[in-house]
Amino acid sequence: RQLHHHSVGIIGAPFSKGQPRGGVEDGPDRIRSAGLVGRLQAQGCGVKDYGNLRFDDVADDAPAGRVMRPRAVGSASRTLAHAVFTAKTDGHTPVMLGGDHSLAIGSIHGHAAAAGGALSVVWVDAHADINTPLTTPTGNVHGQAMSYLVRELHSKIPAIPHFSWIKPCVSAKDIVYIGLRDVDPEEHFILKHLGIKVFSMTEVDGLGIARVMEETCDYLFSDAKKPIHLSYDIDAIDPLLAPATGTPVVGGLTYREGIYITEQICQTGLLSAVDLVEVNPKQGTTEAQVLSTVQTAVDVLLGCFGRRRGGNHPAGYRLPEP
Amino acid sequence: RQLHHHSVGIIGAPFSKGQPRGGVEDGPDRIRSAGLVGRLQAQGCGVKDYGNLRFDDVADDAPAGRVMRPRAVGSASRTLAHAVFTAKTDGHTPVMLGGDHSLAIGSIHGHAAAAGGALSVVWVDAHADINTPLTTPTGNVHGQAMSYLVRELHSKIPAIPHFSWIKPCVSAKDIVYIGLRDVDPEEHFILKHLGIKVFSMTEVDGLGIARVMEETCDYLFSDAKKPIHLSYDIDAIDPLLAPATGTPVVGGLTYREGIYITEQICQTGLLSAVDLVEVNPKQGTTEAQVLSTVQTAVDVLLGCFGRRRGGNHPAGYRLPEP
Amino acid sequence: RQLHHHSVGIIGAPFSKGQPRGGVEDGPDRIRSAGLVGRLQAQGCGVKDYGNLRFDDVADDAPAGRVMRPRAVGSASRTLAHAVFTAKTDGHTPVMLGGDHSLAIGSIHGHAAAAGGALSVVWVDAHADINTPLTTPTGNVHGQAMSYLVRELHSKIPAIPHFSWIKPCVSAKDIVYIGLRDVDPEEHFILKHLGIKVFSMTEVDGLGIARVMEETCDYLFSDAKKPIHLSYDIDAIDPLLAPATGTPVVGGLTYREGIYITEQICQTGLLSAVDLVEVNPKQGTTEAQVLSTVQTAVDVLLGCFGRRRGGNHPAGYRLPEP
Ligand SMILES: [Mn+2]
Ligand SMILES: [Mn+2]
Ligand SMILES: [Mn+2]
Ligand SMILES: [Mn+2]
Ligand SMILES: [Mn+2]
Ligand SMILES: [Mn+2]
Repeated sequence: RQLHHHSVGIIGAPFSKGQPRGGVEDGPDRIRSAGLVGRLQAQGCGVKDYGNLRFDDVADDAPAGRVMRPRAVGSASRTLAHAVFTAKTDGHTPVMLGGDHSLAIGSIHGHAAAAGGALSVVWVDAHADINTPLTTPTGNVHGQAMSYLVRELHSKIPAIPHFSWIKPCVSAKDIVYIGLRDVDPEEHFILKHLGIKVFSMTEVDGLGIARVMEETCDYLFSDAKKPIHLSYDIDAIDPLLAPATGTPVVGGLTYREGIYITEQICQTGLLSAVDLVEVNPKQGTTEAQVLSTVQTAVDVLLGCFGRRRGGNHPAGYRLPEP
Repeated sequence: RQLHHHSVGIIGAPFSKGQPRGGVEDGPDRIRSAGLVGRLQAQGCGVKDYGNLRFDDVADDAPAGRVMRPRAVGSASRTLAHAVFTAKTDGHTPVMLGGDHSLAIGSIHGHAAAAGGALSVVWVDAHADINTPLTTPTGNVHGQAMSYLVRELHSKIPAIPHFSWIKPCVSAKDIVYIGLRDVDPEEHFILKHLGIKVFSMTEVDGLGIARVMEETCDYLFSDAKKPIHLSYDIDAIDPLLAPATGTPVVGGLTYREGIYITEQICQTGLLSAVDLVEVNPKQGTTEAQVLSTVQTAVDVLLGCFGRRRGGNHPAGYRLPEP
Repeated sequence: RQLHHHSVGIIGAPFSKGQPRGGVEDGPDRIRSAGLVGRLQAQGCGVKDYGNLRFDDVADDAPAGRVMRPRAVGSASRTLAHAVFTAKTDGHTPVMLGGDHSLAIGSIHGHAAAAGGALSVVWVDAHADINTPLTTPTGNVHGQAMSYLVRELHSKIPAIPHFSWIKPCVSAKDIVYIGLRDVDPEEHFILKHLGIKVFSMTEVDGLGIARVMEETCDYLFSDAKKPIHLSYDIDAIDPLLAPATGTPVVGGLTYREGIYITEQICQTGLLSAVDLVEVNPKQGTTEAQVLSTVQTAVDVLLGCFGRRRGGNHPAGYRLPEP
């Protein structure tokens, strides 16, 4: 049966070198094992699984300034950018399964290239991931991803070896953050200075998730309706529910808020690519914690592609008579 | 002291054959052991405990079509219907302690018979329990209970042995669902086709529980004010708090939302019968899980009969002076 | 760097004799060990730590009527009142780390003395703590603290040995309660009779925390803007997050609501003294439970002094250029 007309292109990106913890490279396979493909099909989606990307083994990857593992990150991002571009031009809505959030560089870059025009980015995360190479306190690229992509930050980004192919491709005014609660002072300066739209947990508490999503859509659609890139860090969700992640932060989105976001984004009809990142099975202390995290990730993706908690039925269905 | 003027008639219904899991027949005694009667009395209610119903042992109970254990379910429902009718005509507000949700057939049937006129039904549940005998994917009657009761579905219900005494007694327009998040496509068709009022978790997130209850009352009272039958499946509440149940579903009502519903229903002054079902102590993996589920069930019932979280005091109370 | 201009005066009050459970006297040191001072400084606050108060060992402390341990409580309260007065006159915003909630008697008394004029009191708690010495069901003073402080109750308070120095110093109209969900009938009578503003969990559910805080500020500021005394019982927060406390009650504030309250109080610019009480490490059943409680307490205090979940940056910050 055909409830929806989404065609989903799944791209596994088992990459962990944008941060220091092992385990996040197991995210794609764990998310698939929880039944992602079958459940997407059951709700009427076409699915093409491109499998997992193979990333070059990189030796000799000294920091460039503060930036850690620039060669591995630069190379993996480029591979992913091509894969997303391909899935997009094949007619699918790419779903990139991370892996760490540095992958958003490649994913958004590839998406922007395929889309031609401008994108909107909805970044759901406990973190802003917008430190520049010069402000990053850790050097980990998963905390800098956005800085390479935002046009208005271009002059603040030094040349980094292996990153030269990356061109900023998103305007500050086309970004909405949801779920922030651990923002470095330098990041806060950037967000304010560029006037980026942010719904931190304070705003989620103050407005409620329903108005947050209304305002998100009003904001994004205030001029042209652009394709939406949804970059979803599982650490946006509260660690009580999604603990198997590298940088959990207390006071997160509830499961219900996390799903509501996807239901509303889906209803815009403009969702054009999705990242689901930072599921790290090794960071769970029990198997139950890992399962809860992975199942939440799957439900986030199902919500992106038409699942409604109130149910759905195929067009033309008729009740059986006795 | 007399805070409220409710007189509660407790009917234990240790029945589990509307579904496949043992344990739910222990619900009534576990809920009583948590102090239900004493706590109702302490808040000023009269209480008559009718004890537990005895259900016939039924051998030879082959499925009728897809419907499992039709003889046991038909017989238990009829016994319960009489008990609820009796409690009602004795002047009490019946509280049926399940057991599984197939019992709602008997409970609502008996309530409707005693009430004479039409009832409103508020069905708080993760599930719609409205599959017909022809659409049920499992055959378990706890997932079909509503289909036998709704007038507008009558022509879709085949004759089932031992069910012939059941007459539909509720109009689709007099039903409100709250808490749905696991609805079969066929059920979704029925809900839409009959125009039944549904507040799924998407609506609870979108409107907030306060507006959900306002709209519930506005809807139910838009023409005549009818007696309310509240059928409360403990699986409506999130499994983090109420895990000891047969078919838990992630993303449920919070404890606070679950209680708020009862406070608002109580304030209508129209609550006329209550079901509290699907507490299954065997489904808890620790005693703490069972206790949390059972205590939530008790608090739901206390909320139905006048408990307010802000407190209450007897009329005519005066402060002691030194 | 100087983000805020708060100067915080920390006063440890390791006192437990306002209630029967040992362990709550370890609260101040556990809260300090979680990094309170350093984290306040990191967000730009000045901090003076006055250390822990020494309370007299009291033998021969028979109940006075129903009131338990009147000599210990009277003496400790007086010591604390002086300490708060001193911190206030030194120019700091006192933060009293309890210890049990009977300490609010001394803290508010000392604050009122230093402030000269009238105070507002925001009492965040599962309990109203407003039983009089004649209505208290337990005799524990942590459940009576408010009754000694409210002017309008003065005629209902008998003379208690060692309490004679306590003068009521708060008007009923200057009090707001948030988070109540376990209120004795006698307390409920007092709250209603005096017309005290209460946002029980029913109102938090009905209005949402954002409107609760709006209404709190509108109410408190409806005539003169008075200095605010925030008396924060950690048991206001849900026991799933803050279990290490003596009298936990299900259905509490979420972590996010608990923090949102502090953000809004901070933004009034009128916060003049804070109590953080009832953290009892011995009541946690695991170290994780203790840590979760203590870290929540620290975050409550950080929120009081300028922490914003959306981040912050020092005035005059400039981004580094390549
Ligand atoms: Mn991220
Ligand atoms: Mn993150
Ligand atoms: Mn049910
Ligand atoms: Mn159910
Ligand atoms: Mn208290
Ligand atoms: Mn308390």
